Formats: sequence, structure tokens, C-alpha cells
Amino acid sequence: MTFIRNRWYVAAWDGEVGPQPLGRKICNENIVMYRKLDGEVVAMRDACPHRLLPLSMGIKEGDNLRCKYHGLVVGPDGAPTEMPLRNDPVNKKLCVQTYRVTEKHRFVWVWIGDQDKADEALVPDLWPCSAEGWTFDGGLMTVGCDYRLFIDNLMDLTHETYVHMGSIGQIELMEAPLETRIEGDKVILSRWMPGVDAPPFWKAFLGKEGPVNRWQICEFIEPCSVIIDVGVSPVEAGDTLESHDSGVRGFVIDSMTPETETSCHYFWGMARNFAIDDHGVTQRIKDGQDHVFNEDIEVLERQQKSIAENPDLKLRILNIDSGGAHARRIIERLMADA
Amino acid sequence: MTFIRNRWYVAAWDGEVGPQPLGRKICNENIVMYRKLDGEVVAMRDACPHRLLPLSMGIKEGDNLRCKYHGLVVGPDGAPTEMPLRNDPVNKKLCVQTYRVTEKHRFVWVWIGDQDKADEALVPDLWPCSAEGWTFDGGLMTVGCDYRLFIDNLMDLTHETYVHMGSIGQIELMEAPLETRIEGDKVILSRWMPGVDAPPFWKAFLGKEGPVNRWQICEFIEPCSVIIDVGVSPVEAGDTLESHDSGVRGFVIDSMTPETETSCHYFWGMARNFAIDDHGVTQRIKDGQDHVFNEDIEVLERQQKSIAENPDLKLRILNIDSGGAHARRIIERLMADA
Amino acid sequence: MTFIRNRWYVAAWDGEVGPQPLGRKICNENIVMYRKLDGEVVAMRDACPHRLLPLSMGIKEGDNLRCKYHGLVVGPDGAPTEMPLRNDPVNKKLCVQTYRVTEKHRFVWVWIGDQDKADEALVPDLWPCSAEGWTFDGGLMTVGCDYRLFIDNLMDLTHETYVHMGSIGQIELMEAPLETRIEGDKVILSRWMPGVDAPPFWKAFLGKEGPVNRWQICEFIEPCSVIIDVGVSPVEAGDTLESHDSGVRGFVIDSMTPETETSCHYFWGMARNFAIDDHGVTQRIKDGQDHVFNEDIEVLERQQKSIAENPDLKLRILNIDSGGAHARRIIERLMADA
Repeated sequence: MTFIRNRWYVAAWDGEVGPQPLGRKICNENIVMYRKLDGEVVAMRDACPHRLLPLSMGIKEGDNLRCKYHGLVVGPDGAPTEMPLRNDPVNKKLCVQTYRVTEKHRFVWVWIGDQDKADEALVPDLWPCSAEGWTFDGGLMTVGCDYRLFIDNLMDLTHETYVHMGSIGQIELMEAPLETRIEGDKVILSRWMPGVDAPPFWKAFLGKEGPVNRWQICEFIEPCSVIIDVGVSPVEAGDTLESHDSGVRGFVIDSMTPETETSCHYFWGMARNFAIDDHGVTQRIKDGQDHVFNEDIEVLERQQKSIAENPDLKLRILNIDSGGAHARRIIERLMADA
Repeated sequence: MTFIRNRWYVAAWDGEVGPQPLGRKICNENIVMYRKLDGEVVAMRDACPHRLLPLSMGIKEGDNLRCKYHGLVVGPDGAPTEMPLRNDPVNKKLCVQTYRVTEKHRFVWVWIGDQDKADEALVPDLWPCSAEGWTFDGGLMTVGCDYRLFIDNLMDLTHETYVHMGSIGQIELMEAPLETRIEGDKVILSRWMPGVDAPPFWKAFLGKEGPVNRWQICEFIEPCSVIIDVGVSPVEAGDTLESHDSGVRGFVIDSMTPETETSCHYFWGMARNFAIDDHGVTQRIKDGQDHVFNEDIEVLERQQKSIAENPDLKLRILNIDSGGAHARRIIERLMADA
Repeated sequence: MTFIRNRWYVAAWDGEVGPQPLGRKICNENIVMYRKLDGEVVAMRDACPHRLLPLSMGIKEGDNLRCKYHGLVVGPDGAPTEMPLRNDPVNKKLCVQTYRVTEKHRFVWVWIGDQDKADEALVPDLWPCSAEGWTFDGGLMTVGCDYRLFIDNLMDLTHETYVHMGSIGQIELMEAPLETRIEGDKVILSRWMPGVDAPPFWKAFLGKEGPVNRWQICEFIEPCSVIIDVGVSPVEAGDTLESHDSGVRGFVIDSMTPETETSCHYFWGMARNFAIDDHGVTQRIKDGQDHVFNEDIEVLERQQKSIAENPDLKLRILNIDSGGAHARRIIERLMADA
């Protein structure tokens, strides 16, 4: 096992799940999701308890799902409500495993592991995705790599220089000192760049001339998210690393749900507190992220393949990897616990 | 092993095998077939005894097959008749395994297992495929599922309602009572619908108004065939479940030869005793079956994949599955015997 | 293991390796090659010692290679010269395995196995590829078969009759007596055809009427090359099997470097001592070889597949296989030694 059991994982964007069933493999389990008439999301094992045809091929009837093969009907609680022969007494033992679901921060989360341990208080706090005065949009890519390689990638922004050489890479980022901090099960990498020129993107939205304070704060949130707080504010506003809401601010949101040991669903996007009603800006940011993340994915999938082809070689940990290394240690510890 | 050894299996349609060699994997064995000048079909292991190149790549010379690699020639009895160097003495120890073959009911059958146990009396009795006054045509699809999933499918016609919702499915079929009967190693499911309206297809060919008796009788014939007797006759003819030749009658023919543990060659068609010289009817029936069977295949291949992806889940047996369940029990017993 | 360790293997044509890195799997090892500014070829393990991204994706900087992921720089000796964070002290323990390389006979050779045993004197003697008065050109195909199946193929020219039936096959070749000789770790098959008519190809280049002596001499040179000396000279010149330089002469060059146990890089070409400045002839010979070798490859890949699918069957050795059989025995013995 490479991931923590007994955790909430992002299974879908809120808008992906509608009345029609959606099948997706999450943490090695085939899961079908759909929305009931009241809007609530149901998640269950994506296999009819009768002959295992994926229920995601089935037909929605009210809040129930009828299997496409023999017509067995399953309710949202996983129990059958009609047998393939309509008049046969319903055999409640033919129950499909259901998953606890919650919706928060624009995502549908499923609880993997022991269902009676599910606790909504444990949903990772991706607050900028749903905070008042903020807007959030993004996408999904399924990537052929262990989700932990993705965490390594995101917890080290020096790779931007080379992987993103043609897009967002810039050498100066590497020159700002980087601080690593562990807070409970979080890992926080931060860079504070006081009194600098705002780069063009930020300057445009700040709408103000003059020197700014700039920050980049990566935070690993177990089991598999990384959020990156970025932005600038005018020097005269007096913002600090701890408190910096006087300018323009965004969060790069990344949640890498394991699909299998060697693949993951990469939910990505940007939350921001500026130009929040400007869909053009939203689209331009999405297009840019899409381009940049595809550069990462090319590298990550080649890395995964190289790991498989070079079983005698090991990943080494250098200074720049400390963020990812700390995150992996936290994952190791929590896997052992859970 | 998932299939019965020491049995005849359909290896090809009669018309598929001609003078040129045809390679096909049957029950996990690579087999090459061809027709001798006198029309008799030969089947042998599809690997040259010298360096294992498939003999199906070879060159026919009279009744012999010359390997495309070094030119070793094998006769229809599997023994070499010429070595790669023409003047070398023929080494009769270099013998290819041959298979007993018979042609019956429009199919070429090969005997898998101990060749000295082959007995033509054991060829499954698909009599409507070759009976006087009947005609038979159909096709072949190679399908990515265990042949037993296909038997389950065919021994339960309630799936028509959902799988074939857009084509032949109809709810009323489920309302006629179904009888299951075991006769030796056969399983027979029968529905007798007395005094009903003939559906349009049958009415057209019956050429007569008025109420009819209608029947559907599925018969599992080991090791891997299912034939379905369907038709209507005028009520006044007094036909019975046991004897019903006064109207129009057809047999859906299905023989699912294992290719591997998880794939099979599906030989399908319809034999009928009406409009037997009308090739237009033949073609329309074939087109219809082709369409319907592709709906089954989509479901069966997804089911096979789901079984592989959910190793902790089991196929359950409900009332409607009793036909398939009986057939599987017969297969289990005969596998142990043979 | 199916190949000899501690040997030189052809890794590339000389012209394939330039300043930009080239990745290739050789004997199951992922290797990256590039040319330094002084023209010397470097070969090292194709995985960054930091996070294993293939170095062949990297960026050349002078004679060094910078990893595309985090920018670690490796020098031609495999030792890092710059860490991902520029100011970090260079950790020389992060060393990439390098391979001894030599260029000879138009090929780049890498030494697989213990690097301290590399000895340039052991490079297989493909002298016609680089001799004065000769010219050499050819190509590369990566083929899905064990390299030893290719050696079998080349050490037996009777297969030409059937595999190359539509191109170069001719029955008369089989009629000339063939001599097999073992000289140390070489296997030599020779045919001397005295006083024959020159075939059109040779006649054109000999530029002389009258009977010729013709020869075909296949030589297996361990670990994985076969060169075939072919040509004709006028009878009156008095050439012999041992010495035959009075006419026109060529060598078919074949070196089959293992990629994996079931695939190989097939470096092929023709060296010749006639029309050496005529690029049209070079191109026509290349086109012809390309066509013929693709006929071999079809057979070899099918043979490899058949071996995998018929695990109960074995390759048999007949008289015509003695060349390949001897070569395989030499390989077996040297594998045990090395």
C-alpha cells in the first residue's frame, strides 16, 4: 500500500457528478458516484452485487441505479430494491459497499477505509476554494505516476527553472531563501521576497505602482494535497509572512488522489481573491496552468518509467527535496497508524 | 483449466477452412487447419517442429505444408516428408502433434485432449444446422471473456430487457413462466406462451392470421454450446412444448469455443425452416444478430474486466441464473472426469 | 541472462551520436550517449542520480549534461559538477555509472559488465567496415526477438530460399556444399563455388565476361556479430577460399546487440571494395538490404512469439543449424566464464 487508509480523498469536481453515474478508480477501488434528486452525492462500489457488471453502465431510476445486465436495482444505501425478476423477494444480503461522501471546497470527497471512522472534520482544509470573496476553477488529469512523485514535485519549486524553462521558469526564484517548517502533519515551505518589483502578471492585478512584498508558500496537507499561496502586496501595507491580505493573492490548488500504486488523478486549479467575476481571467489562468502542468506530467511519467526500469537505483534526497521528504515521512507514519 | 478436455470444439466454419492454412488458438493451443485436395480437413499444432515458426505462415504443396522458414515439409499426419536440406534423410521423430477433426453441422470440429479418445458420436448435436428442409448461416466474433460468462448470458433470456433495450428487449418476455429441466448433461429452459398474438417477425413468415402458440427453449449442450428453439404455430395445429413443427421455427445457434481462460471464439447464427431459399431473409437475420450480439459482447467484456479488477467480489447466483448455474455445475463435473 | 557480460557491444552508428544526448537500452541497461566538444563519446547510465529522470531528456552544457528536472549537472566522468541549488556544495558521491566507450569500424561500442576489464583489443574485428579502399553503410532496426534467434538465422543461409522467396532466394545456393569450421571462438561457414556464371549483380561490377569463382563465408564473431564475405573473381585470377581479393568483394555486416532478453538492436549494412564512391550503388544496396531484412524480421518476431506461446515445445537442431548451434555453444561457454 502506498497511501493512507481512513482518509478523505477527492473523487471528483462537484460539477462532474450529476444524475448520471460516473465510474472512477480511487485508491485501487472501482467506485461509482451519482447525485440523488435532492442533490446529495452517493458513492458505492462500481460492481453489481449480482454478476459484477459496473454499475456505472447502469440506468438511473429516481435515486436508484438499475444494472444494465439483468436489471437488479440498488438504492443509494447500497441495498437492492428490486431483483432481476421483479416478483422475486428482495434479497437484502446482496448489498453493495457504499462510501461516505462529503462535498466541500468544490470537490466531492470519498472516505476510503473503515467507513465508521469517517469524520467530516477531517476533510483537508482547502479553504481558498470556497471562501467568500474568492473564486476557484481548474481541471483534472489522470497521470501515470505514484502520487508521491507529484508531491515531491510540488514541494520543490526549483524544478520550475528547468521543467518550465519555456513557460514560467525563472532563475531568480532560486535565489530567494526558502524556509521549511513542520506544523503537526503539515509541511510548509515559504519564501518572502520583500521590496521587489512585481512581475507583470501581479502588477496588472494589483493596479498600483511601486515596490511590493512577494510570497510563495507551499503547504503539504495530508493525505495528498499541496496548496501554494502566491501573491504580492504594496510594501507600505506592511504585510507579513503570517498575514498578507492587503494585495492580490491566489492559491495554486493540487490534490493528487491515488488511482493505483503507479497512477493518480490530479485535481488542479487556482483560487484567487482578485478579478473574481472576470471569466476571461479565469480562462487564461486555466489555460496557463494546463500548459504548465502538462510539462510536469511529461517529466513525472518518464520518472515513473525510469524508476521501474532501474530497480537497482534509488531516489536520493538533497536539500531541495526536504519538503517532499518531510511529506513522505508524514505519509509513512500515518500509513502505519491508519 | 476452465474447460473440459477430451471434447470436440468448434474450430471454424466449414467455409473458413480451404487449401490455405488457417491458424487459430483453441483451448490455449495454437492450431493450424487446412483442407487437403480431397477436401478433408487437417489440424495440427501451429508450430514447425524444427524452429517453431507457425506453420500457418507456410506454403501448401499438394496435401503437405512447407514451413516458411527453412522449408521443412510436414504431411497431413504430422510427420515430415522433406527436411530443410532436401537430401537429408527424413527424421520421422520430428513429428507435429495432429488433432482429430470432423465436419458436422456446418462446422469444423477438433478434438482437444487425448486423441485416442476421440469419438465422432460425441459431436454435439446441433441438428438444425444441417437438417433437410432447414438453412443455416451466421458469423464468428472473438470475445474477451471466459466462455462460461457467455453461457450464463445465453441461458438467461431476461437480460434481453436491459442489454437489448434498444433492439429486441421487451418486458413481456419476463412475464411468461420459465421451466428449467436437466436431462443428463443437458440443461433446458423452456417457455410456452399459448394463444398469444404473433410478433411481427413471426407473423410475416407464418403467413396466417389468428392466435398462435409461441415458444422459447434454450438448451445447453456441453461442452460449450447453447441452442435456442424459437417460433410460433397456429393454435389450431395443436402443437406442444414437446412437438412443434406445424408453424415456423428457428434455432439461434451459439457455440463458444474457449480461446484462452479469458477469451473465446463465438460462433453464432440462425437455423430456420422457413424462407430457406431467400438470401435476403438470411442476410437480414444475420445483420440483426450481429447487432444484438455486439450488445452482449460489450457487456461481457466489461464484466470480465470487472471480475479481474474486483478480486474480492464474487458472482452471485439468483433464480434467473439457474440455467447458467446448472450448466457450470455440469462443466465442473465433466472437467473433473475428463 | 542471455548474453555475455564483459564485452563490447555496438551501441550506435558513429553518426547517430552527436552533441545532443541519445538514450538507448543496451543489454537491459538504460544508457545515454553524447559527444563531447572534442568529439569523444561519453556513455553513462540514463538516470539522474538525484531523482532518476532520464538524463537523455537533459540539456547539454559544454561537455556536461544538466538534468531537465532539477538541474543537477553531471560531467563526462559521471560525477556531478553542480547541484540543483547552485550554491550547494557538490556531492561527489552522487555519481552516475559510466561506461567505457570506443569508436571503431564506424560504430560506437560500449563495454557492458565490469568496467575495469574493458580492453580495446577485444573490440570485434569488423575490419571491412573501416578498411582503406572499402566503403560501408547501413541501418538500424530494433527487433522483437532474442538476438540469438538472429544469429541462428544468419548462420544458416538456406532460409533464403523460403523467407526471401520473393527477393533474393534461389534454390541453387542450397546445392553448393557448405563447410563448417570452428576457430577459437569463431564459427565459419563457407561455400566455394568454382567456375560458375556470375549472377547479374556481381557481373555488373566485375566488368568482365567469363567464368568466376564465387564465395559465401559466414563468420560468427562473439558476442553477437555475423559478417558474411561474398563476391566473385575471374577464374584465371586463381583466388582461393583463403585469399580472394582479385575480383569484387563485399561483406554483409550484422551486429545484434541485445536490448532485452526478447529484443535486440540490429545494426546492419554492407561493406564493399568496388564502386566505393558511387552513392547510387550505396543507396540501392541499402534499399535492397532493408527490404530483405524486413522479411527476416517478420519471421523472427513470429518465431519469438511462437516460442512464448508454446512453452512445451523446443527448438530442434538439424544439420543446417550447426552454424547457429556452434555459435550458441560458444556464447554459453563465455557467459559462464564472464
